[in-house]
Amino acid sequence: MPRPAPSRRAEPAATSAPGARTAVALRLVSIRDAGRDGRLGIVSSDLARVLRGPTDTVQRLLEEWPMHVPRLIALAEELERGAGAPLDARTLLAPVPRAYQWCEGSTYLSHMRRCRAARGAEMPSDPDREPAVLQGASDRFLAPTEPIVLAQEDWGLDLECTLAAVVGDVPQGAPADVAASCIRLLVLVNDLTLRGVLQAEFAKGLGFVQSKPLRAMAPVALTPAALGEAWDGGLLHARVSCWVNGEPLGALDSGRDAAFDFGQVIAHAARTRPLAAGTIVGTGTVSNADASNGFGCLAEKRAMEILQGREPSAYLRVGDTVRIEAHDRAGSSLFGSMQNTVVDIDRRSEDAERQ
Amino acid sequence: MPRPAPSRRAEPAATSAPGARTAVALRLVSIRDAGRDGRLGIVSSDLARVLRGPTDTVQRLLEEWPMHVPRLIALAEELERGAGAPLDARTLLAPVPRAYQWCEGSTYLSHMRRCRAARGAEMPSDPDREPAVLQGASDRFLAPTEPIVLAQEDWGLDLECTLAAVVGDVPQGAPADVAASCIRLLVLVNDLTLRGVLQAEFAKGLGFVQSKPLRAMAPVALTPAALGEAWDGGLLHARVSCWVNGEPLGALDSGRDAAFDFGQVIAHAARTRPLAAGTIVGTGTVSNADASNGFGCLAEKRAMEILQGREPSAYLRVGDTVRIEAHDRAGSSLFGSMQNTVVDIDRRSEDAERQ
Repeated sequence: MPRPAPSRRAEPAATSAPGARTAVALRLVSIRDAGRDGRLGIVSSDLARVLRGPTDTVQRLLEEWPMHVPRLIALAEELERGAGAPLDARTLLAPVPRAYQWCEGSTYLSHMRRCRAARGAEMPSDPDREPAVLQGASDRFLAPTEPIVLAQEDWGLDLECTLAAVVGDVPQGAPADVAASCIRLLVLVNDLTLRGVLQAEFAKGLGFVQSKPLRAMAPVALTPAALGEAWDGGLLHARVSCWVNGEPLGALDSGRDAAFDFGQVIAHAARTRPLAAGTIVGTGTVSNADASNGFGCLAEKRAMEILQGREPSAYLRVGDTVRIEAHDRAGSSLFGSMQNTVVDIDRRSEDAERQ
Repeated sequence: MPRPAPSRRAEPAATSAPGARTAVALRLVSIRDAGRDGRLGIVSSDLARVLRGPTDTVQRLLEEWPMHVPRLIALAEELERGAGAPLDARTLLAPVPRAYQWCEGSTYLSHMRRCRAARGAEMPSDPDREPAVLQGASDRFLAPTEPIVLAQEDWGLDLECTLAAVVGDVPQGAPADVAASCIRLLVLVNDLTLRGVLQAEFAKGLGFVQSKPLRAMAPVALTPAALGEAWDGGLLHARVSCWVNGEPLGALDSGRDAAFDFGQVIAHAARTRPLAAGTIVGTGTVSNADASNGFGCLAEKRAMEILQGREPSAYLRVGDTVRIEAHDRAGSSLFGSMQNTVVDIDRRSEDAERQ
């Protein structure tokens, strides 16, 4: 898999922090096979080589995590010694191909402020008192190179750069620190939105169904321990970049301007019910208050253009390609790159066959 | 399993309707085992006996349905000839113990009208033009006899009698008739709601997360063909009854007062994306315009009491037991009975051990 900085420093496969019995530096993928979940793979820290995981799917691993830790550590060490087959990104599904729950909180308030201002909608009262969290669908995530099927261009397809935590079992009523300790994996998501459909759903006040098509994921899911300095226990400090047809749209600092950390968003979702292993909790679109970093979605860019009296940029059209990637301070690609091209609904089977 | 009318008429195990190659009269359960999905069982039409299914879980069956049809027909016929072990409702999980997607449409507008009037909230514009659909969590459903864990009585726990369809793969953009043909199973759900938490989430306009605790399911899932005259292709014509501590709350006619049928709600959810096999699509709380049938939730009863200047009934408290069941015209219990008792959060492990 291509990546900008191949010379990542060697790292210990497991931490020895107190209470971190389940912590292990790990990069996971799901390799396409005949089933809907693919086959679990573990990849080297340079994302170049892959070994089969200790169980069949990422979901099963999430359910049985502690019992697999010794084998996971051994596999990660084998990979760092050069074991494994070459990794081909085109053979991958989303690292979590489907999940039993998706919810997301609006962590980056500058995203909400710009989008709502452009629609003339009000901000929720006290937006930084508690996260605004919503449920989404998780029955299938698009693979990192899979086409995005769009039936009507006037639906206003937009990308949204989003980070998400995949958790183990979270007890009902868990406080934020306990919730954060349940994080098993981090993933990078394109939380696609149909802006032209959203307005009508927003008016109904029940959240978003038709305005949320299938989301896409970057190929690799990382454990917090594999993120090194980029993870401080509650936030990912990375540069999240996106391009449309090769043109940079944004290069956001995900460690800045977050009103809530992952633990707080997960605790919010778990206040009145437990969350089962495999639940994915997203941050909402990564956004910086400083507009000079650009934007993680077209809606924010359009909002700024409209404010400046300029013609707003177009939403995504058939043929457009979106690329999203996140890098740590050393310039290493953390999750690998996702690159998805928008196709017309009538071309979906043709494209599926070409894959 | 106890049921009111044991003398159900014999029925063909499969229909011979054109295009109904996958139609088979089937009653499914999930039997508790060490895993989260349980073990698929098929039960006799009198809900008294059970045989193991042709594959391990209901989710797998939903994904592979057509290939299992011949074996399913044979098993159903064996059951009608008296095969199978006695069925004990206490050994059952929810028939769908977890799912990759839950969404629900507000099908019965009298429910929305009464609830919103009581809160002073407005109805959506044109509520009968298209269904108001929202996403929910589906990472775990409570078993038919499992306790409902409640941390605070002032959260205002309410039951909600809801019907739901479990679908096979639904193509993106499927019209209502195609969507209806994707229905594999019908289930009866207690779509529990925390009314005291809902108001604050409703004000944010992003749907419901904290106000929706784990939902419960009646023990048996039925194929449309097993519903006989109670299924007309788009609606279930049953009497849906609920009791709180043995006191009747409502006995609703689910075939009346539905503004939309299942096909329309599923098609709404699938307008901009496919729905994967195992997706559950609910109807919202079953409700009749004629209040003399009672109510499928406490909120509607309270709304009427408040309008009449009476003291509103209390929401559910620790120790209360909710029973929900649905019967066809002949008085046969379609889904079996679910009976869930509210317990304090500190008693949850104690109760789990007693199970």
